[in-house]
Amino acid sequence: MNGFNLISLLDLLGTFAFAISGIRLASGKNMDWFGAYVIGLVTAIGGGTTRDVLLDLTAFWILDPSYLLTTAFALLVTLLFREKIMLWGKPLFLFDTIGLGLFTIVGIGKSLEAGLPAWACIMMGTITGSLGGVIRDVLINEVPLLFRRDIYALACIAGGIVFFICQKTGLGSFSELVGAASVILIRMLAVKFHIHLPTLIPEHIRNNSPGDSSEQ
Amino acid sequence: MNGFNLISLLDLLGTFAFAISGIRLASGKNMDWFGAYVIGLVTAIGGGTTRDVLLDLTAFWILDPSYLLTTAFALLVTLLFREKIMLWGKPLFLFDTIGLGLFTIVGIGKSLEAGLPAWACIMMGTITGSLGGVIRDVLINEVPLLFRRDIYALACIAGGIVFFICQKTGLGSFSELVGAASVILIRMLAVKFHIHLPTLIPEHIRNNSPGDSSEQ
Amino acid sequence: MNGFNLISLLDLLGTFAFAISGIRLASGKNMDWFGAYVIGLVTAIGGGTTRDVLLDLTAFWILDPSYLLTTAFALLVTLLFREKIMLWGKPLFLFDTIGLGLFTIVGIGKSLEAGLPAWACIMMGTITGSLGGVIRDVLINEVPLLFRRDIYALACIAGGIVFFICQKTGLGSFSELVGAASVILIRMLAVKFHIHLPTLIPEHIRNNSPGDSSEQ
Repeated sequence: MNGFNLISLLDLLGTFAFAISGIRLASGKNMDWFGAYVIGLVTAIGGGTTRDVLLDLTAFWILDPSYLLTTAFALLVTLLFREKIMLWGKPLFLFDTIGLGLFTIVGIGKSLEAGLPAWACIMMGTITGSLGGVIRDVLINEVPLLFRRDIYALACIAGGIVFFICQKTGLGSFSELVGAASVILIRMLAVKFHIHLPTLIPEHIRNNSPGDSSEQ
Repeated sequence: MNGFNLISLLDLLGTFAFAISGIRLASGKNMDWFGAYVIGLVTAIGGGTTRDVLLDLTAFWILDPSYLLTTAFALLVTLLFREKIMLWGKPLFLFDTIGLGLFTIVGIGKSLEAGLPAWACIMMGTITGSLGGVIRDVLINEVPLLFRRDIYALACIAGGIVFFICQKTGLGSFSELVGAASVILIRMLAVKFHIHLPTLIPEHIRNNSPGDSSEQ
Repeated sequence: MNGFNLISLLDLLGTFAFAISGIRLASGKNMDWFGAYVIGLVTAIGGGTTRDVLLDLTAFWILDPSYLLTTAFALLVTLLFREKIMLWGKPLFLFDTIGLGLFTIVGIGKSLEAGLPAWACIMMGTITGSLGGVIRDVLINEVPLLFRRDIYALACIAGGIVFFICQKTGLGSFSELVGAASVILIRMLAVKFHIHLPTLIPEHIRNNSPGDSSEQ
């Protein structure tokens, strides 16, 4: 795998970004230090862990303590700046989006190493990027934002397609940067211009629905 | 494994049935297209994925895009008939029940291939059939229906026992059809005649319980 | 692994303790017998199953029906004493705490067999001890207690450290008893003296936070 060291670096940066995002969200939920640490960790490693489990690999963080330490560093940063961190909505959104882009590309890289075809690599990249946030939302007992704000995971899919186009055209390890940048750009533009998919079934139809009590 | 092609066909039919059921439930929750697709996919492949993870296999859908495509087709059907689909309570209940029977037998077949004993095959068949719906309910933030409407998973267990009885008596690949039909029949009869298990602890006892604030 | 038979015995005792605790909690949630059984089973085997999945092993209970049977026995005990079991807050807290200590040490033992370094063994022990309760809470649709009552998982971590100190000083299989006892003692003292970690961000800061609607 070319670009291996780049992937390692992006991986830790993404971990830090996601951990900060998870810890901050947990803090808003009246959790204590330890609970916030666990939520930060799950946000950071949940997507990649799911990828490894699906690929039938040992979870990536078991033989490398750097993910736990990076999350501990994110907890420390949150503690040091806790007077201000709840006001940092915009920079933390940026962090979270950068983490999304980086993790998507890391996930695609690891899936390529595992010999998956391109469509499965893109799916694994999307899982790596977005599933940590889904697990986080399940743990704090909310409907995952992913399902209501589509451009999150769709940005991963689009960035993954860009990555493979770059690879085909011979951009080499530069493909990773272009792919990650695409994810970040698409998500930022979608939020800035309030772009989102329509709901599947319009409200006036939904309201006519009989009770669902007989359905599993 | 005899009946292999039959299993492949049942697998896709079950995928379609479960995906429709999941997409429809998600639509009722104000999700957008993408969220509904993911919920449909999770409902369809969640049980089998859990089975593969527990058996320490690579998730079955990673090397075969037909599950993703079948779910996409289910989304298309939902979109085309969305004016009517919220009113289709009964046919969709039928779909869901057929999916349950098919997936249970598919799960038992794959567990037999993995060399598990009969009791573990039945458990894996039950997980294959019912866990997709549990994950779906967790994601849409509801207590899984499974735990309140027992005849769902119990039908899988009963159908699994029927399957192994058929195999012992030499019915061959016909066992699969009889087993799946048993699951479907038991569930439909249970719903029709409102058969369900009693709650474990009667309400008048529960209400006497002191607060549980000290219990993890 | 010395102490293997001891580990097997502790494993079943912990399973029984956790299953009782899960079944009782499920009963308070208006679940039927089957739902209560599944919640009890998940509480008992969820942590160890997660450990096995992360270590890329086949789930430990698939080739050994004793865990399902032990949970069935716990269900029977709950049924026989259901008039009284909702009042048994203190003895069941004790059960749950004993299960926590036992499972932590069982998890560390299995991780040592898998060749993990000490820090990863402690993490796997903590997951084995505490994740069953987290999955249980997710399934009954509550924010996991773990994240609000920290001394639960922290007790596992502390007990794991004690275990490795004992091993270094040559206590042999006695280390397991000392480690488990440490977990139990720390948790009981923490509950008795109301020891808990502070929340990460004080309430007056949290309340100044702008809406989080733009954050994934």
